[in-house]
Amino acid sequence: MDSAWGEVQLRPIGIVRSPFAQAAGSPIQSCFAEAAEGAVELFAEFAPALRDIEGMDRIWLVYGFHRASAPSLQVCPYLDTVEHGVFATRAPARPNLLGLSAVRLLGRDGNILRIACVDILDGSPLYDIKPYVPRFDSFPDCKAGWFDAQLDKPVIADNRFEAGSEDSA
Amino acid sequence: MDSAWGEVQLRPIGIVRSPFAQAAGSPIQSCFAEAAEGAVELFAEFAPALRDIEGMDRIWLVYGFHRASAPSLQVCPYLDTVEHGVFATRAPARPNLLGLSAVRLLGRDGNILRIACVDILDGSPLYDIKPYVPRFDSFPDCKAGWFDAQLDKPVIADNRFEAGSEDSA
Repeated sequence: MDSAWGEVQLRPIGIVRSPFAQAAGSPIQSCFAEAAEGAVELFAEFAPALRDIEGMDRIWLVYGFHRASAPSLQVCPYLDTVEHGVFATRAPARPNLLGLSAVRLLGRDGNILRIACVDILDGSPLYDIKPYVPRFDSFPDCKAGWFDAQLDKPVIADNRFEAGSEDSA
Repeated sequence: MDSAWGEVQLRPIGIVRSPFAQAAGSPIQSCFAEAAEGAVELFAEFAPALRDIEGMDRIWLVYGFHRASAPSLQVCPYLDTVEHGVFATRAPARPNLLGLSAVRLLGRDGNILRIACVDILDGSPLYDIKPYVPRFDSFPDCKAGWFDAQLDKPVIADNRFEAGSEDSA
């Protein structure tokens, strides 16, 4: 199926359910979405792959920005008023439309994971689940460039990166 | 191009260079690879998307496990002697062969990023770069299930998840 070096076709393993039908008004990151609960509806064939996931406080979800507007190489992100390279931001309008969120795992019912801290749009296709392991993933003292000057900015999205919205055309 | 709901074709944005030509003997996570230096060779067309990335201490790389063996729903990971669901592990043999590493950013030369803490195989196709933002990504006190009992285990990979190796056939 691959037509050129490194190209790969992703197939969803499930779907993300959340309270957010559109970007405008949704939290921009899971850390600003503590109260937002949702679910991972894993396709039943993958249920055995969840064995022992119950012990994890958080899980990484790798999902598709299925409503994102066309990619831009430089964007003005939610947290700033000037443009940055898209790889220096977490904006959805990326060359490959992949999102990454560390959501809280509340529990499991068969092939359904109940989650909180959900900053993901309802209906997003899910491509991978990985356990959040502090030893691998937690670097609390990292400097984060322009983000570090933006700690007091609003943390709710608008529709700037959403396909079909007035502002993203 | 998409043939079914949620399917998406990823195209590489660059290539990861590292000292590790094969899984056997390589570090299993970037936190065990402090001294391993490498590079991201971003395709030149994407260079504008790196603007302002220099301020980041770490960056997430989303890349392809291009040498991984066929996916398994349950695997015995490097850090344990019993099987877990693959979504409760970081093993490469996943339904979608996507890797995720928080590498240290040493510097930028045009479209080349010099990196350290590299646990990625040389030649891996790169799909996304995201800034590591402690406020979004750092949760040092999370419990991580079976990982938490494995702190004293070896941290070097063998070839169990590599295509074409004797053990993965």
